[in-house]
Amino acid sequence: MATTVSSGMNLVLIKPDEVDPTGRLVLADERAAHILRALSGVAGHKVRIGMLEGPLGVGTIVSVAEGVVGLQCRFDDAIPPKPSVDLLLALPRPKVMRRLWAQCAALGVGRIALTNAARVERNYFDSHVLTPECYGPLLVEGLQHARDTRLPSVSIHRQFRVLVEDQLDELAPDSLRLVAQPSALPSISDTACGRGGQRVLLAVGPVGGWDAFELKLLDLHGFIAVGLGPRALRSDTACVALLALVHQALRHRTG
Amino acid sequence: MATTVSSGMNLVLIKPDEVDPTGRLVLADERAAHILRALSGVAGHKVRIGMLEGPLGVGTIVSVAEGVVGLQCRFDDAIPPKPSVDLLLALPRPKVMRRLWAQCAALGVGRIALTNAARVERNYFDSHVLTPECYGPLLVEGLQHARDTRLPSVSIHRQFRVLVEDQLDELAPDSLRLVAQPSALPSISDTACGRGGQRVLLAVGPVGGWDAFELKLLDLHGFIAVGLGPRALRSDTACVALLALVHQALRHRTG
Repeated sequence: MATTVSSGMNLVLIKPDEVDPTGRLVLADERAAHILRALSGVAGHKVRIGMLEGPLGVGTIVSVAEGVVGLQCRFDDAIPPKPSVDLLLALPRPKVMRRLWAQCAALGVGRIALTNAARVERNYFDSHVLTPECYGPLLVEGLQHARDTRLPSVSIHRQFRVLVEDQLDELAPDSLRLVAQPSALPSISDTACGRGGQRVLLAVGPVGGWDAFELKLLDLHGFIAVGLGPRALRSDTACVALLALVHQALRHRTG
Repeated sequence: MATTVSSGMNLVLIKPDEVDPTGRLVLADERAAHILRALSGVAGHKVRIGMLEGPLGVGTIVSVAEGVVGLQCRFDDAIPPKPSVDLLLALPRPKVMRRLWAQCAALGVGRIALTNAARVERNYFDSHVLTPECYGPLLVEGLQHARDTRLPSVSIHRQFRVLVEDQLDELAPDSLRLVAQPSALPSISDTACGRGGQRVLLAVGPVGGWDAFELKLLDLHGFIAVGLGPRALRSDTACVALLALVHQALRHRTG
């Protein structure tokens, strides 16, 4: 059985081109440092591994030199499915968004569509937290924590109306569309219950909420309002809470 | 109707000794700055207010000078109930704990009992994030966001065994005790369902989890293991997700 690597990296994610055809892998970066630190890097020990966008597996430590670890990899046949929840998120402040990348990836999201809205400040879109160089490693960090290999797709939309009217059917076809509101509306579990294997697209608004036009447009495009209870939450707190609730509702309806 | 103050402060919290017997209140600190910024501080406008540990209410702006706002306050008769969830949390890293204070207060927690555990580093207990000077304002920030007046009680426990064996019955009597595990155990909603108006005490472990001794002790003291699904989560993400799930389960069983 694979030993769980503690302290956050519960899975070592690797790229397809890092493994040679015989399954041999040599790590010399922070992943190697982590294996050496957390597992004392003893030859013969096993490490949970995963191929980005591919299967999970087990790596057996076959060599240890200074800061370099050699692994013999074996992968499962099946690839984990993409998480069945997609997120339509009004872009929060860069500092908040920076914290959310890894949390979303850990909770499990198939797609993160970031959008403008009346209550989103335009200059948030110029932040480096929206560059793949910034969010890529944060998404990988979240996946490594949650032991998943499937990277969320990321898309950035500066025009809310164009996104909802023209792009959403393609980005998230056939999804159950939910828009979360701080109120006593029907709960996520009531609404998502009994929906079979359908994907869920969850819209989370900005601080201060969607405006009337945006709510109307979401309603016109099939979004069902669901309540998160009476307490208003910060957008990062709301996002984590809502993803947890949707995932639980999905586990219930399939289990 | 009270105007919602945007950008996070959805309620202005005040202390009992700040209001004179006629209900007059003069603010000259960041709360005044916020009212002036968010509401343009127009006389006659109304602001949602709340008395710490007391009722909610409405403040009518009666005077505006440079950085100083005078309010005439009216309070409801009833005091909001304490949130019916208490948290037994293995102390996370100070940086993570710092982020959690406001989030826990916003989600709604009656008590936060922070505890040592085998996988908690001892020096975390020396951090200034455990001083009331640090966490007090962060808790108030969370309450102001969520429009609540009831401050979570905070207690800090360096001995897990003493806490569970000798102190917990007094700190959280008659609670439904749950310990969260990343696994496919019965869900929180299944377990908390049909428990009437009982309080819930939720135990959340450290990064890497509770050890075998700790799990055994929790089991011996009535904690029921509940699953958060198959994905391992960081302790702040787990805490937010679990509190959301427990609150939803409680809303369902009472509504």
